[in-house]
Amino acid sequence: MRYLPGEPAQGFNNQSRIAGYQARNFLFAAADGVATITLNRPERKNPLTFDSYAELRELFRAMAYAEDVHAIVIAGAGDNFCSGGDVHEIIGPLTRLDMPGLLAFTRMTGDVVKAMRACPQPIVAAIDGVCAGAGAILAMASDIRMGTARSKTAFLFTRVGLAGCDMGACALLPRLIGQGRASELLYSGRSLGGEEGERWGFFNRLCAPDELLAQAQAFAADLAGGPTFAHGMTKKMLQQEWNMGVDEAIEAEAQAQAICMMTNDFHRAYHAFVAKQKPDFEGN
Amino acid sequence: MRYLPGEPAQGFNNQSRIAGYQARNFLFAAADGVATITLNRPERKNPLTFDSYAELRELFRAMAYAEDVHAIVIAGAGDNFCSGGDVHEIIGPLTRLDMPGLLAFTRMTGDVVKAMRACPQPIVAAIDGVCAGAGAILAMASDIRMGTARSKTAFLFTRVGLAGCDMGACALLPRLIGQGRASELLYSGRSLGGEEGERWGFFNRLCAPDELLAQAQAFAADLAGGPTFAHGMTKKMLQQEWNMGVDEAIEAEAQAQAICMMTNDFHRAYHAFVAKQKPDFEGN
Amino acid sequence: MRYLPGEPAQGFNNQSRIAGYQARNFLFAAADGVATITLNRPERKNPLTFDSYAELRELFRAMAYAEDVHAIVIAGAGDNFCSGGDVHEIIGPLTRLDMPGLLAFTRMTGDVVKAMRACPQPIVAAIDGVCAGAGAILAMASDIRMGTARSKTAFLFTRVGLAGCDMGACALLPRLIGQGRASELLYSGRSLGGEEGERWGFFNRLCAPDELLAQAQAFAADLAGGPTFAHGMTKKMLQQEWNMGVDEAIEAEAQAQAICMMTNDFHRAYHAFVAKQKPDFEGN
Repeated sequence: MRYLPGEPAQGFNNQSRIAGYQARNFLFAAADGVATITLNRPERKNPLTFDSYAELRELFRAMAYAEDVHAIVIAGAGDNFCSGGDVHEIIGPLTRLDMPGLLAFTRMTGDVVKAMRACPQPIVAAIDGVCAGAGAILAMASDIRMGTARSKTAFLFTRVGLAGCDMGACALLPRLIGQGRASELLYSGRSLGGEEGERWGFFNRLCAPDELLAQAQAFAADLAGGPTFAHGMTKKMLQQEWNMGVDEAIEAEAQAQAICMMTNDFHRAYHAFVAKQKPDFEGN
Repeated sequence: MRYLPGEPAQGFNNQSRIAGYQARNFLFAAADGVATITLNRPERKNPLTFDSYAELRELFRAMAYAEDVHAIVIAGAGDNFCSGGDVHEIIGPLTRLDMPGLLAFTRMTGDVVKAMRACPQPIVAAIDGVCAGAGAILAMASDIRMGTARSKTAFLFTRVGLAGCDMGACALLPRLIGQGRASELLYSGRSLGGEEGERWGFFNRLCAPDELLAQAQAFAADLAGGPTFAHGMTKKMLQQEWNMGVDEAIEAEAQAQAICMMTNDFHRAYHAFVAKQKPDFEGN
Repeated sequence: MRYLPGEPAQGFNNQSRIAGYQARNFLFAAADGVATITLNRPERKNPLTFDSYAELRELFRAMAYAEDVHAIVIAGAGDNFCSGGDVHEIIGPLTRLDMPGLLAFTRMTGDVVKAMRACPQPIVAAIDGVCAGAGAILAMASDIRMGTARSKTAFLFTRVGLAGCDMGACALLPRLIGQGRASELLYSGRSLGGEEGERWGFFNRLCAPDELLAQAQAFAADLAGGPTFAHGMTKKMLQQEWNMGVDEAIEAEAQAQAICMMTNDFHRAYHAFVAKQKPDFEGN
């Protein structure tokens, strides 16, 4: 792992601690089970670079083994989420690559989304201001999206001569907002406003800008409060059942839920209920 | 069949009559082709038990052969739909089961949903008040949902330490309300209100509480008026095409609709139209 | 090709020009890369016939090779979109066909939808007034739908004794408006109003009736302005990823977008951006 050597943890699970991770290309902080990733080049509206893509990929991959992070918030510094791939730092160099080089790039960016969908922690995106191109993809690839009325989300690949099919957008976006609305955004590249985005189901909630990060972190903290093993199973099955038939999905869930019924958290919840108390989940 | 010996009907289809069925764990009534299942332990908000799960499974399976039921309403007694699996009667015993026992349980509950999706009759859920846990699943697994403004639908598995992937929820719920909104409900377990549920497409309609059952039964009666063979084909194909490609779905529908064009109901509709009359469908 | 002999164009792509096409069963006009198909039997609300189905199929198939059309508008003459299959010209004859004949018909109609989804040009439907039966299918099979408040869209197959599974409706409609709302429309055959349709995501936009066609054509003209190769890739991938898993879709898009990054349009966009100009896309 290039960025994340990690600190070996107890047990056979090869888990590691990630809270002290020193990020190179964005801000990273973790407390009480919630990690916050903040894209941090506010003077440019937080664009992505080759390095930040690669670090995000490695960080989300490492999350699969993180024993001390149970929910993730992704946000942008200043009043914007992310302006996407930088024109000078990414688009320009791409115009000079050969096909193997291009495919290596599109696979790397796709791997960021794969890693976001594969890690067990729910990801909450806090989206204010500009959320464009690869930034819109990071939002789309999150589990929960909180926005602001003034946020502008644009899948603007078409504006640079490219297709809307970037990093899984033609698969993921239609299932968030419907095939017709997704088609419009992907063909036209137009901005989706905050209220429209909430109405369409892109945003789970709109917040006042100065409350956005706190609300996203509070939602993440609730999830980090557990049951975290079960949340990880929910996330896995949302992914796993994507293209299963209904009957196969039901059998898959019968197995997955039976696994969860073997956890102590299930027993803790039952005993807390009987004792008229709130359960303390421990993630096992 | 444990609960439903049935009365053999005419013909080679092995169809049976179900209207006189005496239910053990809920109320059952059928008239004019519409069967109404009423969960009926109102003092506990109509929870499910091991026995009621099993009887629902057997009843919906028997519906596949019922020649006298053409649409189904499922409702709850009192002012609530269903509070889900009872904590004392289900959760407690589950904490004492081994893995084969747990899987037998999760498969039984999953089989209720499989049977609801497999029977040819459209199912209309009439949802007032509490609709929680397995109750929310019964609502989700229906074809049509009518709610009330005061209804509260909660996929609250997470509250008892379990995952949102229960009885097909990670497959079915995202296609009803979108992946982002479904993710929020399944991770958080929070209640979905009536108006929000209508806005999201979970509810097809909101009704005044004292008109809810009548409206659900009227909708079901319209469907029971036919063409019932065709409605059964619509339901089958909605299920069958769940994870087909578009071209394969179109070929599947070409075959399914050609079958329907061979029915007398199709001819009846044509002749009624020509005669400027309303067709009398007979389901063949 | 029965209707479209075409005029061979330059190059190895076997492309042909289609702008001068003389349609037999509807109006056809093309200018500046936008083709407009107008169903034109306004006195009957623009019904379809065996011949118009076949011509639509051939025309959309030919679009795959058309080098001079980059976006398509489909509309109806008068104040209606399309009343669907004519009862006297289609339903009546169908009641006299044998099974091979019926299947030949349902496959032909399904092939219209397959061809609409397979051609690289985005299709914008301009929907006013009656949009019923096969007319609703043409709307559903388009990429973008613009409606009017007074439009009435009805999947009314059930009214003639048939199933809702016609020409792909059980696959496509649920992904546009959600499974529950689609189920209601397909079982009941009821009309979807304009405002309701916009709220549900069936319509991308509502227009004043006298501005509808102009707005649809303006939207199409924007898309025809390019990048058209990329738009064709977006359309292809929206179709291709329909029933892929998420990871497979991401890999598919990595390849598709790498192909687009090899186009001159991508380079044109970059150089225009650097020069602070608007790019002139050429579709290669």
